[in-house]
Amino acid sequence: MAGEPYLAWPEKHIVEFLGNKIKKVLFIPYAGVGLSEKGLEDSFNLYEKKVADVYQKLGYELYSIHRQADPIAAVREAEAIAVGGGNTFYLVYMLHKVGIMNEISKAVKAGAYYMGWSAGSNVACPSLRTTNDMPIVEPESFNCTHLIPFQINPHYLDAHPAGHGGETRQQRIEEFLKVNPNLYVVGLREACLLEMQGQKLVLKGAHPMRIFKNGMEPFEVQPGSNLDFLINP
Amino acid sequence: MAGEPYLAWPEKHIVEFLGNKIKKVLFIPYAGVGLSEKGLEDSFNLYEKKVADVYQKLGYELYSIHRQADPIAAVREAEAIAVGGGNTFYLVYMLHKVGIMNEISKAVKAGAYYMGWSAGSNVACPSLRTTNDMPIVEPESFNCTHLIPFQINPHYLDAHPAGHGGETRQQRIEEFLKVNPNLYVVGLREACLLEMQGQKLVLKGAHPMRIFKNGMEPFEVQPGSNLDFLINP
Repeated sequence: MAGEPYLAWPEKHIVEFLGNKIKKVLFIPYAGVGLSEKGLEDSFNLYEKKVADVYQKLGYELYSIHRQADPIAAVREAEAIAVGGGNTFYLVYMLHKVGIMNEISKAVKAGAYYMGWSAGSNVACPSLRTTNDMPIVEPESFNCTHLIPFQINPHYLDAHPAGHGGETRQQRIEEFLKVNPNLYVVGLREACLLEMQGQKLVLKGAHPMRIFKNGMEPFEVQPGSNLDFLINP
Repeated sequence: MAGEPYLAWPEKHIVEFLGNKIKKVLFIPYAGVGLSEKGLEDSFNLYEKKVADVYQKLGYELYSIHRQADPIAAVREAEAIAVGGGNTFYLVYMLHKVGIMNEISKAVKAGAYYMGWSAGSNVACPSLRTTNDMPIVEPESFNCTHLIPFQINPHYLDAHPAGHGGETRQQRIEEFLKVNPNLYVVGLREACLLEMQGQKLVLKGAHPMRIFKNGMEPFEVQPGSNLDFLINP
């Protein structure tokens, strides 16, 4: 949330979600390619430190996948997994390369907690196809964990810079719908989150979210509304 | 150019570039997925009409690849090829699917004229990795025609919407450089173009362009400057 300390806004939601039983959180830092001038390893170290400081304050120990000798085993053994934001393409590239995309999906379906922000929220979707990020690297596949059956567009933005010939966010999503007519896309604005427990999905936060589907006028959904149509489309 | 009739700004540059010898221009409409509610075929028809009207006024006949029975032969026989803007991923997906990505490259190296705007400018690069577009479909490969050895970021924008937690354009490009340290990226602003004849590259238009390379401070280059460093890096 721009203008606030890092992860300050969702702190209380993290605690509500993880509760007292979870002690340790496996962190996925691969989206964070730009935190250091000294290379990716240092960038991931800095990212882990930045996020671990927040989680430690909340009572959780956070440890990063990039320091694990056996990342597949680490995912299988994780109580909770947190996927940080940054560049979605590099994140998805690494999850496939390390071989943990499907492992994360299996672990969460078997009961592990999953949380992700920005690029990390796209990884919960069927694919990365509604990211806003630059395709700085070609992943083995666009497929993601498919924990939810719809696509999130994070940092959803209504405004459009003046004098700019590029597409608006809504136009981009409408292009997506033209070639993917069966999927819902959710425009998730800043200071908002989606929480799913079992098959129950809830929007929490300061703003409504905007829903897009081919053949329908885009519409707004308020926090607390029934979202079963997204889970069972 | 926002606020002007379609393709009005580059009209005189199109005429300067194509001259009197070229009569016919093969158009690639595949980026234009969003022009019609009736489906992609209709969208491509409308896009062809929109662009053909401009070219006809300038004295050129424009005909679209999507109506050619043998698109590979059409590329091989083309005097000039124009690639329209829209969604870069759908464009690159189709160029690979139809089998003409390498054919365009070969045709241009053998003497055909190439022009592209927005998504069409990215197709002239080594790959699509510096597009701003949403990855609405997964192409067979990110590789493009490699007519130039550097990457263009079209619609380059200095501004950043207020209160937005996403990355600025410069941050996105800097992420690209972290994982692609050997490539130059050119931020091409609105109402500007790059023209290459043989090995001579020239910036024309209303603004400087911004140059990015790993390990260097980004810098501005004025129209008319020597750009040999981009062609022979």
